[in-house]
Amino acid sequence: MSDNTRKPLVAILMGSKNDWETMQAAGKIFDEFGIVYEAKVASAHRSPELVAEFTKSAERRGLEVMIAAAGLAAHLAGVVASMTLLPVLGVPMQGNAVGGLDALLSMVQMPGGVPVGTLAIGSHGAKNAALLAIRILANSRPELREKLRGYHAKMAAEIEKQTLS
Amino acid sequence: MSDNTRKPLVAILMGSKNDWETMQAAGKIFDEFGIVYEAKVASAHRSPELVAEFTKSAERRGLEVMIAAAGLAAHLAGVVASMTLLPVLGVPMQGNAVGGLDALLSMVQMPGGVPVGTLAIGSHGAKNAALLAIRILANSRPELREKLRGYHAKMAAEIEKQTLS
Amino acid sequence: MSDNTRKPLVAILMGSKNDWETMQAAGKIFDEFGIVYEAKVASAHRSPELVAEFTKSAERRGLEVMIAAAGLAAHLAGVVASMTLLPVLGVPMQGNAVGGLDALLSMVQMPGGVPVGTLAIGSHGAKNAALLAIRILANSRPELREKLRGYHAKMAAEIEKQTLS
Amino acid sequence: MSDNTRKPLVAILMGSKNDWETMQAAGKIFDEFGIVYEAKVASAHRSPELVAEFTKSAERRGLEVMIAAAGLAAHLAGVVASMTLLPVLGVPMQGNAVGGLDALLSMVQMPGGVPVGTLAIGSHGAKNAALLAIRILANSRPELREKLRGYHAKMAAEIEKQTLS
Amino acid sequence: MSDNTRKPLVAILMGSKNDWETMQAAGKIFDEFGIVYEAKVASAHRSPELVAEFTKSAERRGLEVMIAAAGLAAHLAGVVASMTLLPVLGVPMQGNAVGGLDALLSMVQMPGGVPVGTLAIGSHGAKNAALLAIRILANSRPELREKLRGYHAKMAAEIEKQTLS
Amino acid sequence: MSDNTRKPLVAILMGSKNDWETMQAAGKIFDEFGIVYEAKVASAHRSPELVAEFTKSAERRGLEVMIAAAGLAAHLAGVVASMTLLPVLGVPMQGNAVGGLDALLSMVQMPGGVPVGTLAIGSHGAKNAALLAIRILANSRPELREKLRGYHAKMAAEIEKQTLS
Amino acid sequence: MSDNTRKPLVAILMGSKNDWETMQAAGKIFDEFGIVYEAKVASAHRSPELVAEFTKSAERRGLEVMIAAAGLAAHLAGVVASMTLLPVLGVPMQGNAVGGLDALLSMVQMPGGVPVGTLAIGSHGAKNAALLAIRILANSRPELREKLRGYHAKMAAEIEKQTLS
Amino acid sequence: MSDNTRKPLVAILMGSKNDWETMQAAGKIFDEFGIVYEAKVASAHRSPELVAEFTKSAERRGLEVMIAAAGLAAHLAGVVASMTLLPVLGVPMQGNAVGGLDALLSMVQMPGGVPVGTLAIGSHGAKNAALLAIRILANSRPELREKLRGYHAKMAAEIEKQTLS
Repeated sequence: MSDNTRKPLVAILMGSKNDWETMQAAGKIFDEFGIVYEAKVASAHRSPELVAEFTKSAERRGLEVMIAAAGLAAHLAGVVASMTLLPVLGVPMQGNAVGGLDALLSMVQMPGGVPVGTLAIGSHGAKNAALLAIRILANSRPELREKLRGYHAKMAAEIEKQTLS
Repeated sequence: MSDNTRKPLVAILMGSKNDWETMQAAGKIFDEFGIVYEAKVASAHRSPELVAEFTKSAERRGLEVMIAAAGLAAHLAGVVASMTLLPVLGVPMQGNAVGGLDALLSMVQMPGGVPVGTLAIGSHGAKNAALLAIRILANSRPELREKLRGYHAKMAAEIEKQTLS
Repeated sequence: MSDNTRKPLVAILMGSKNDWETMQAAGKIFDEFGIVYEAKVASAHRSPELVAEFTKSAERRGLEVMIAAAGLAAHLAGVVASMTLLPVLGVPMQGNAVGGLDALLSMVQMPGGVPVGTLAIGSHGAKNAALLAIRILANSRPELREKLRGYHAKMAAEIEKQTLS
Repeated sequence: MSDNTRKPLVAILMGSKNDWETMQAAGKIFDEFGIVYEAKVASAHRSPELVAEFTKSAERRGLEVMIAAAGLAAHLAGVVASMTLLPVLGVPMQGNAVGGLDALLSMVQMPGGVPVGTLAIGSHGAKNAALLAIRILANSRPELREKLRGYHAKMAAEIEKQTLS
Repeated sequence: MSDNTRKPLVAILMGSKNDWETMQAAGKIFDEFGIVYEAKVASAHRSPELVAEFTKSAERRGLEVMIAAAGLAAHLAGVVASMTLLPVLGVPMQGNAVGGLDALLSMVQMPGGVPVGTLAIGSHGAKNAALLAIRILANSRPELREKLRGYHAKMAAEIEKQTLS
Repeated sequence: MSDNTRKPLVAILMGSKNDWETMQAAGKIFDEFGIVYEAKVASAHRSPELVAEFTKSAERRGLEVMIAAAGLAAHLAGVVASMTLLPVLGVPMQGNAVGGLDALLSMVQMPGGVPVGTLAIGSHGAKNAALLAIRILANSRPELREKLRGYHAKMAAEIEKQTLS
Repeated sequence: MSDNTRKPLVAILMGSKNDWETMQAAGKIFDEFGIVYEAKVASAHRSPELVAEFTKSAERRGLEVMIAAAGLAAHLAGVVASMTLLPVLGVPMQGNAVGGLDALLSMVQMPGGVPVGTLAIGSHGAKNAALLAIRILANSRPELREKLRGYHAKMAAEIEKQTLS
Repeated sequence: MSDNTRKPLVAILMGSKNDWETMQAAGKIFDEFGIVYEAKVASAHRSPELVAEFTKSAERRGLEVMIAAAGLAAHLAGVVASMTLLPVLGVPMQGNAVGGLDALLSMVQMPGGVPVGTLAIGSHGAKNAALLAIRILANSRPELREKLRGYHAKMAAEIEKQTLS
């Protein structure tokens, strides 16, 4: 999923294996920027020990950002944020019944003290979680900021050359 | 808050001290039925260790039902349910911005595997969490079921004698 | 649907025959735990007498938990809760128009006095209603609590061995 | 509340005594049109027997329309509609948490077979429930329809003479 | 669509031809009860003159109930109610974007003075609009009330004999 | 409310006299720009004739924009738009129960054919309805566009000089 | 897409190429009325320079109305409105997760000072944005108003001749 | 507001002066951690030039995180994120009509490419935006991470010593 010769800087934690279909959009961005990441399934409710173990060692393992994706009563990001001092980003997964509003509110409405920076529901959010993680990493990595600058320029250029058929 | 000569059977866990104003409605019901309970503030996000310690010892301490009340991204009930095998009931607290819908969805939309029986937002839910706990306790305590029968009869009688002025 | 040599401990009441497709998730859990249950279609609105008859005899028949599943203006769980002193759990069915929010609010927002412990919309809720019922039954059945402990361990183990392809 | 020398044609049933504050708007309309009505508190959940008794005798007592007002998981109108063949109108009461949307959906989303004609949340709905009841009664009472015609003319005239200060 | 030898008692007005797919559920009920009805497409916004003409003559033509079905900003029922003194029932059509909540609120939230008795979104509402119309008609037609009684008995009987496979 | 020596170019129609409290924000903008306007209370439901009369003569009277403000099931703007070919702008009024979402959806979700340009709920929308009307009028009045340019420059300048205390 | 021998009067700006599928409904209306328009993809977030360039020159290029279509956090219309003094109309695109409510609120809830006249979510809104633009253009083009009159007459006639099969 | 002898690392941008009342909660956190910050009012719609000037120079001025707070159609955070490569955090302000859901969706639902890490509505979000900014800054400032560790320990300790009266 990512080249393993360098140290991972970001973790993508998912509440369910099915979330990977959406979160691959984040993986693709990291690959494009040459950033090594870990991707792991661990449920806040069904495997709390695994979440704790993974999260509590994250700082020590040299990670700088944690991304948590979950659906329904999406507690994963908040639980992760309560167990680490790293910046935590949340991506709400779209569900059947209330369209992801449950996951969005369960992530974004964190009480004061334990922050989760929440992105959009679904694949837009997955992609943007990776890009926000890269903006964070770029604070101390000028070459990454330049890559971001290139990415934005390319994004604008692609839109400029679009024509309607 | 409750007489301590007998063993507590129920715990009321609250994410914030302010939630007690609402949850007292549960306390009053337990007092009325003569059920000893514990009431404790412990935040899933701000004091996760305290929640774990309190919850993991609950079964051993002889509790039979746990009630968790929280607002906003209300993870408390779900986190508690992931750490105990006791029945867990959740009471969403009303917030400022989206009227408690955030807390309701964060509690009720638990993924399959770890159940939270969720009651109404606010004091109706607080009162009903206590009454549902008592229905659960009454499964093996016939005298409690008789008290419940009396409670229902009184409730109906009170409505029957109401007149509109 | 369940072995009939032993006495049923739980009833699953459904407002419509179509709800069985969703509620089978509860049935499967009961089967897995070896718990005998009754499953019955009876509408709060279209067959109120049947609901009353079934519910009012539930306690006498030795049931310990009642699960009610309904969609739209889902009154079934509340009506059942008003006719029995057993713990009542509600599962909102997903509808076409407002995604199950109608059924969720119709179940969970019960006024103080008559509690319904509400689970998630749809099959997650169905599964969890069964698991919550089992937690309740386990209060006086230690062997059931041990089965639950095994279930949770297996659930965590299954997540731990998941790998992303 | 209304003159008792003539037979009541309409009943206003309320889930809670507090609902009368809102439902008085209906009472005032009936008084204005000289229609005798019954007003009664009876909760679908807390006094189901009273609701059944009151509703099942309504047809025999000569009532022609039943109005049910309730808040939260507002089952009253649906339960009433399942116990009578009279036209049933529902008025959702405004609550604290989700602004009356719970009561609205609990009333209006009735499954096919048992209809509740639902009016607006709160006092607009109370007033309109009375006016719709009168339109129904007027089908076989030409003098009532003429009163309605006068009411509408007066309503329009009052708006026409309004000036902004 | 209905036998024309007798006078129509009810009109079904629809904002768009597509609404007929949903409203046929009302037509079927009327056919089952032997009630003659008119069904007509007329948009409050796109053909206001046609709506006015149709509605203003309804009383004179002997109609006793008007049903209006519309989607989106569903003004049809309210506009009809402002032009007739007959009881008006509204059926919100399900739309793409917000699931029929737009049509529901546009119908049910009528300001005091001009009532619309609103039914559920979609085909449940269509069926129930017809059944509520019949309850209204039955006020002065005892034979219709007996048919309703039979309908309810049959509905309950059908549920009672349902078995789960 | 506005100087009457010149011809009014815009009408503000309100469903209720109470709406004027909110819509004064529009009046103030028109006064500031020296634009004569008419302000009138006329309800789509309670005084439909008045609405029709006022709207159908608007074009002839030389009006160029119509603004309609209403709350609840806010049909006024749509009804006005169906009776004139002038551009119609809608301002949803905030209500008690669902916070103005009812009025917003009732205005903005107009079916294809009859457009209403909808502004924000409440006084922000009132002010912006006037400013959008002025942008429309400015298409053929260069001096008005220059006034708008000045207004925007002043608005930006005011923000630039704000300091936080 | 439109004949280029005459000067364009309206621009349709879209946040994404995919929006054209929906906005073609606007293009078809302009073609039907013989109005030349520009259609352009330019994202408020991904190509802000392009949006600024296109918008700031719009007035000079003789455009009289700008239509902006966008989904999700749909800032395009607001950003355009802050950069031009032309009337700006917004069309919210339907999304996956919350059905277009995100785009609707992001467009319509503009703070006082910078107005966006918002139309319905999706293709109804696209069509109506074009029709509202034409109503605006018609203020100074009597022949266009006559075409509108014809359009409305045809629309009504088409509904009048509809029959239900 | 903050000591100015050291270089500011974070900017708090607000769409309106009134937002400062809420955002002071962020300022207090920065003061507590000894982090210099800039606080500035600049509206995406009313003073777009000011926003652009402030944002485009942010990276050069050595800022590492930008926080944007806005209400209603809250475009500020998205617009800022499109003009800088720094990590951008958004805080939705609570409004009158739809309780801050408008601002929340306008911020969090950013399309893929331009990320905004969104926090809770109102003061919880303000506080957490500051804490998330500090987590980001702490990635390259070990002493800041230790302060965070102390902050969390104190937060947990404060909850542990709470007693209910």
